[in-house]
Amino acid sequence: MEAWRTSIVDSRDGSIRIRGYDVTTLMTARTFTDTVFLLHQKRLPTPAERALLDAILTAVADHGAGAPSCAAARLAASGNRQSLSAAVAAGILAVGDEHGGAGMGCMEMIVAGVARARREGVSIAEAAARTVTDARGRGERLPGLGHRVHSIDPRTRVLFDLARANSLAGDGIAFLEAVAQVVAQQIKPLPINVDGALAAVLHDMGFPPPFGRLVFIIGRVAGLTAEVAEELTRERPMRIHIPVTYDGEAPRPVE
Amino acid sequence: MEAWRTSIVDSRDGSIRIRGYDVTTLMTARTFTDTVFLLHQKRLPTPAERALLDAILTAVADHGAGAPSCAAARLAASGNRQSLSAAVAAGILAVGDEHGGAGMGCMEMIVAGVARARREGVSIAEAAARTVTDARGRGERLPGLGHRVHSIDPRTRVLFDLARANSLAGDGIAFLEAVAQVVAQQIKPLPINVDGALAAVLHDMGFPPPFGRLVFIIGRVAGLTAEVAEELTRERPMRIHIPVTYDGEAPRPVE
Amino acid sequence: MEAWRTSIVDSRDGSIRIRGYDVTTLMTARTFTDTVFLLHQKRLPTPAERALLDAILTAVADHGAGAPSCAAARLAASGNRQSLSAAVAAGILAVGDEHGGAGMGCMEMIVAGVARARREGVSIAEAAARTVTDARGRGERLPGLGHRVHSIDPRTRVLFDLARANSLAGDGIAFLEAVAQVVAQQIKPLPINVDGALAAVLHDMGFPPPFGRLVFIIGRVAGLTAEVAEELTRERPMRIHIPVTYDGEAPRPVE
Amino acid sequence: MEAWRTSIVDSRDGSIRIRGYDVTTLMTARTFTDTVFLLHQKRLPTPAERALLDAILTAVADHGAGAPSCAAARLAASGNRQSLSAAVAAGILAVGDEHGGAGMGCMEMIVAGVARARREGVSIAEAAARTVTDARGRGERLPGLGHRVHSIDPRTRVLFDLARANSLAGDGIAFLEAVAQVVAQQIKPLPINVDGALAAVLHDMGFPPPFGRLVFIIGRVAGLTAEVAEELTRERPMRIHIPVTYDGEAPRPVE
Repeated sequence: MEAWRTSIVDSRDGSIRIRGYDVTTLMTARTFTDTVFLLHQKRLPTPAERALLDAILTAVADHGAGAPSCAAARLAASGNRQSLSAAVAAGILAVGDEHGGAGMGCMEMIVAGVARARREGVSIAEAAARTVTDARGRGERLPGLGHRVHSIDPRTRVLFDLARANSLAGDGIAFLEAVAQVVAQQIKPLPINVDGALAAVLHDMGFPPPFGRLVFIIGRVAGLTAEVAEELTRERPMRIHIPVTYDGEAPRPVE
Repeated sequence: MEAWRTSIVDSRDGSIRIRGYDVTTLMTARTFTDTVFLLHQKRLPTPAERALLDAILTAVADHGAGAPSCAAARLAASGNRQSLSAAVAAGILAVGDEHGGAGMGCMEMIVAGVARARREGVSIAEAAARTVTDARGRGERLPGLGHRVHSIDPRTRVLFDLARANSLAGDGIAFLEAVAQVVAQQIKPLPINVDGALAAVLHDMGFPPPFGRLVFIIGRVAGLTAEVAEELTRERPMRIHIPVTYDGEAPRPVE
Repeated sequence: MEAWRTSIVDSRDGSIRIRGYDVTTLMTARTFTDTVFLLHQKRLPTPAERALLDAILTAVADHGAGAPSCAAARLAASGNRQSLSAAVAAGILAVGDEHGGAGMGCMEMIVAGVARARREGVSIAEAAARTVTDARGRGERLPGLGHRVHSIDPRTRVLFDLARANSLAGDGIAFLEAVAQVVAQQIKPLPINVDGALAAVLHDMGFPPPFGRLVFIIGRVAGLTAEVAEELTRERPMRIHIPVTYDGEAPRPVE
Repeated sequence: MEAWRTSIVDSRDGSIRIRGYDVTTLMTARTFTDTVFLLHQKRLPTPAERALLDAILTAVADHGAGAPSCAAARLAASGNRQSLSAAVAAGILAVGDEHGGAGMGCMEMIVAGVARARREGVSIAEAAARTVTDARGRGERLPGLGHRVHSIDPRTRVLFDLARANSLAGDGIAFLEAVAQVVAQQIKPLPINVDGALAAVLHDMGFPPPFGRLVFIIGRVAGLTAEVAEELTRERPMRIHIPVTYDGEAPRPVE
């Protein structure tokens, strides 16, 4: 078999290098968040970039035991206490476009919107307006707006303020705020949620759209591990009973 | 259905609290590593504790594309490019006693060994010697020693030095070093690997054994996300061909 | 890389052979259940063996949307509608010693019990009595007895009758029925559940203990696929709200 | 919490009904393949339908240890020998549009093509030609054609012959064969692969497109369980070494 190629880690007897940096130096001179940034950006972050990434990872770490990812991890732990990996993985599998995954779609919308402003020679605000019009025409939801629990997501303001205070705010934040404003005028106020906020900030920090989902997974795994540990420590096996109503075919004989 | 109970996160409209702390404050005043510590220890870490946990998470983040976890994630990404979650989860599923999971077993050995010293009224060193003798008698391997790539794991010294410099070294490190010494005298030199090192340090920081596996998952997910991103960016779908030799039944007719 | 070796499938241009049999012949001359048997036993089943394996696979296919495996699959589908594989996998991850997995433990108990009868020169019934005594002494539960929903599991009688009618009943059924009788006399009536029943039957058909878990996974995946399909067809995304009560630390400031 | 609703299984003390049928009757009067059909079609199959579904499930059960799904399952088993569920789930996670999942896309293409013939008032053959032209214009691949191992997939002919012999062949097979013919004339001969074949047959049997992927998962899990069992029985832990070449950043100091 041909060897696989990689530009991430070079590991040989007595030496492990991540993107060229010796792991033992990273372990003492840098933080884990720096390592996350390095793995995905191929360079170490500035203090401002580190602060933003720390804020994002903490923002998505956990949202309560009833979130689909947390609940799926607990259900797996409830039936399968032999494998911590299995329970955490089950939690991650609940992450998609609908749960924790809007960041990626929102980053794709931002990339397209900013390119459109350039291509059509209009302002970011006008590109946002056109994006909203198009989405409404296709009957599509705009990713990154609204939340099923929060009428105003408290994490959004913190991320945007932090980006501005660190001079990291750019077209991404501008575009998404313009989208939210147009939506508020034309439809109804739908505050930017944490997925939208992290999408705008990560775009302005130069990350590609898929990182909008991967960063959620990295942060959420911290919460999932705690949920699984609590389930195994505090609860007995198979304690979960989901109530079910059957509304299918009446009893019938096998012909 | 009875409500589930949790002591991890309280989330309600406009407010998310992790172990009592407002998430928006944690986002700006603390690091992601602090959040990991908080989720599992129910309190925020000291700077020394944070430094140790940062070092551990970076130590296990990635060990090259050919590690079972990384390779499993890449195989999943190769056949299923629609779900980043699925690929990352496949990588986590390769983590167990044999890969990345020795930390948990090693922490259990340390807990038992330290309790034994107390119970049998002997020194940590003597308890270590008895632990080795027992394991040899049962023909069992001692977790946390030896590595298939590294003759000396460079991450071990860094973790132990950091623990000592921060006055966090305790019975865990003492016990495991004594075990390694006895093994070197009685069998052959088998250096402490990163799983053993993080087990000893986490024990001395007050973490329970399962965290020895969960911390590996948290750290490794950073690497897995990068491996998956690289696979999707640099490689074409279904590019992986594992060479296989068939050595089973010869062709035969269905009777 | 050295080629992997396998005795399962030989596939080359224009030809696929499973355990030596041409797949195109198997497709028309045999059933899928025959293929399952062949994959695990290296030979095709007799009609009696096929009938038993069909009955077992149908017995475990589904037990309602609230079973941990089914509920985990639905939660994953609810948050991640992009990957059918991810949702089905999440369901499988909830299968372990506690849910759907008692078959493996029960087969291990049967293997040990039958060996004990031989080794200690006693009857199967006496070996069963000694097994119960030992388990009670160690405070351990006996796998394969009792069910959280069924006071009498209706599937057990069907499997045992079918095994007897087909002359496939052996030491496994005898041993487990003896265990249940001793438990009923000494503790309380705990009927043999489907995991116990399939364990006894599979033991008598010559399968090794791990197949007691694998057969559950093979059967249950039929149900999981239907649960996922129903979730995606009948329900809207993120419709699941698990009620949660927080009982942790009161609000506190970050020092 | 509101009870979940389901039309699949009604299970209560002493009784389990699948789509209205008592499971104990299904266990003895019907095959597992019938149960699969019932779970997804809400009715029991005719003998002809059962024969087709049996053939499809066997066709996709396994394609060799090097297939992404089989290799991912083995890698997980190699690092994590504690959980059979985890290894099987890792294998399923490698199933997507690129591996084993073309059936779903092909069924969607067939549904669209047959609707187009009706809508545009043209023959199935003409609709196929227009579909190919459109796909070429968009630079898209046609799902269900070509195979990386087989120049002619031996399973396709068997499935189509079986469908015709059982009077189950309809617009699906006609459309896909027309597509293959147009492709052969305009581009190059690309034989219909097993994903395409099962897509056409399942369409003609009335299954919806997602079943084109789910049926692959159901069949493949039979093979995955055998691959995992072989890995654990024949191989030692962590035996897999994937060769890797590093081509990233040269060693550099942390600034």
